[in-house]
Amino acid sequence: MFIKCKKGDLLSGINIVSKAVAGKTTKPILECILIEAKNGMIRLTGNNLNLGIDTYIEGTILEEGVVALQAKLFSDIVRKLRDNDVSIQTTSDYKVTITCEKTNFAIQYMDGADFPALPAVDKEKSVQISQLALKDVIRQTIFSIANNENQKMMTGELMEVKNNVLTVVSLDGHRISIRKMELAGDNSDMSVIVPGRTLIEISKILTGGAEDMIQIYFENTYILFEFENTRVLSRLIDGEYFRISQMLSMDHRMVVNANRLELMSCIDRASLLIQETDRKPIIVSVKNDNNLYIRLDTNMGSMKEEMEIEKEGGEIIIGFNPAFIMDALRVIDDESVSIYMKDYKSPCIIRDEEETYSYIILPININVGAYQ
Amino acid sequence: MFIKCKKGDLLSGINIVSKAVAGKTTKPILECILIEAKNGMIRLTGNNLNLGIDTYIEGTILEEGVVALQAKLFSDIVRKLRDNDVSIQTTSDYKVTITCEKTNFAIQYMDGADFPALPAVDKEKSVQISQLALKDVIRQTIFSIANNENQKMMTGELMEVKNNVLTVVSLDGHRISIRKMELAGDNSDMSVIVPGRTLIEISKILTGGAEDMIQIYFENTYILFEFENTRVLSRLIDGEYFRISQMLSMDHRMVVNANRLELMSCIDRASLLIQETDRKPIIVSVKNDNNLYIRLDTNMGSMKEEMEIEKEGGEIIIGFNPAFIMDALRVIDDESVSIYMKDYKSPCIIRDEEETYSYIILPININVGAYQ
Repeated sequence: MFIKCKKGDLLSGINIVSKAVAGKTTKPILECILIEAKNGMIRLTGNNLNLGIDTYIEGTILEEGVVALQAKLFSDIVRKLRDNDVSIQTTSDYKVTITCEKTNFAIQYMDGADFPALPAVDKEKSVQISQLALKDVIRQTIFSIANNENQKMMTGELMEVKNNVLTVVSLDGHRISIRKMELAGDNSDMSVIVPGRTLIEISKILTGGAEDMIQIYFENTYILFEFENTRVLSRLIDGEYFRISQMLSMDHRMVVNANRLELMSCIDRASLLIQETDRKPIIVSVKNDNNLYIRLDTNMGSMKEEMEIEKEGGEIIIGFNPAFIMDALRVIDDESVSIYMKDYKSPCIIRDEEETYSYIILPININVGAYQ
Repeated sequence: MFIKCKKGDLLSGINIVSKAVAGKTTKPILECILIEAKNGMIRLTGNNLNLGIDTYIEGTILEEGVVALQAKLFSDIVRKLRDNDVSIQTTSDYKVTITCEKTNFAIQYMDGADFPALPAVDKEKSVQISQLALKDVIRQTIFSIANNENQKMMTGELMEVKNNVLTVVSLDGHRISIRKMELAGDNSDMSVIVPGRTLIEISKILTGGAEDMIQIYFENTYILFEFENTRVLSRLIDGEYFRISQMLSMDHRMVVNANRLELMSCIDRASLLIQETDRKPIIVSVKNDNNLYIRLDTNMGSMKEEMEIEKEGGEIIIGFNPAFIMDALRVIDDESVSIYMKDYKSPCIIRDEEETYSYIILPININVGAYQ
């Protein structure tokens, strides 16, 4: 193999496919990036068997061939080269030389034939969405997936399309995040559970705006995201997702409208009294004035603060894990938020009027009498 | 105690004295910041017994008093307050309330009387230097102190003043860094070994420029840096520093002039083939042309590069720890550097003509024949 390309093009391609390269594994070939130079096209591929990404880059093929290069080393080398033309060439002693101006690296390569090919996906059913929109719905839900591999289904997100409305759901047993969005055009109905890792990696790659579309194909086992010169192919999580509709139909007794940034900075202040080892709730009280009272008592100290709000409905005293409230507030783009509550035992819902987003958060059980 | 001050003033003061607060210790009082409100002055102090810093801040004293507050918590709280007036007041139950607008924190305090006072320093002998100059000489030498507490003297820097010339020296057994600077005015002769930690912390605090002076007082055990409202007091390291003059008098056989940034980027590229576990040298060759040849062979791969230089004198092949060369090149401000060499067994010296800086680096023993 002997190819030439611009450092910038090569590096962009490496950065994209690296997202699917395995970390430390027992199969060194999975820690590689595959370079294929064939039929006038240069293709890079990363594949950890759960997630595979390939992309085509510009360049000149002087001799066709296929090699697999240890991804981290290859990427480090290319990143540090000068911004000029880069040649990659195999030598007779099972090495690849990487040359740029007067710099010359020689590293080992592995046989490209050992690299696992990306499986083919049936393109019958598809959904189309803008890159920006996909990035947004991932950002606004991904924080509430579970990390616990024992709860496999919670480590993924439900992506559902029904009547051209996309619904994305994540939950971890303490909270549920839901984003809805109308899609343009005519899309297949879909209901799949996509691994969180896939969504995190794909949103790192997406650089396009509201006009740049991404095509999503899916079948039983795989989902394929296709955009520009790049394909991201992921295994799906098998099974039927949790039914969440009953959680949403809760009747609320009151709603509080608060300035989002002010509420965040208040909860942020309170949180600094919480050490990792204790799980003290912040106590939120709404009384018969237009104030929200927040207080927190830990063995580090206590904090009290009040902020002006608008409200409808009665009074409440309720305890929350402040991190869960913060996570939701952080991803909302609106200036003010509405928090719907019922009583100290029932979850609150932070949502907008059209329910494009809904964040359902379970309260922490508190002795309400102590705070009255 | 009851004081009021602006959040910004309070936070600046906290940030300064925090540099002398102990980390985790068995004496909780050393993890505190002392606040003293007396005679119309508000003073903050941090003191870990090796290093002590105090500073005066603006504010109003409504009731005199002294308290010690856990530094990290106090600093976290103040940092997160709104940018407005802050009140700090002791309450009857051994607590301090920190109030800003509608935010109210209450935390425990410790008895200020238990806090170790900063020792008094004799002000007979003194040296004056600009803040910027002190910061520069620290930055340009501090990287070559030793981390090893068994070699106590190497963990500090020699600060010597003779005939109004300041010389700052650090060394770690593999290299020596020397900075010289003429001082204005009439300064006492001085020769002290200052702990590296002190110099690192003081250079974080110094924000002033070439016009802002700092006064340095010293006696046998302590050194005191005084500037603006702040005093930094440090224990000295006891003993007589290493004699370095003979290292400097080496006769060189050749000198190479190279572009500093180009040389750095070349060595940086080579370094990525070095894993933490192996200590492979970079091989630097100068032949009878105007090129510097750099090569490196490790079990990750090999790298070769050449760059144009100017040179005087003969040929050489010599091996170095690339990190040592990089550390020196990184802190030099000149566009091009001169490297003086003798043979593959002798240290090289990177220095400017006036010897305001000299970086002496021992080579790594290599089998020269293998690279000819």
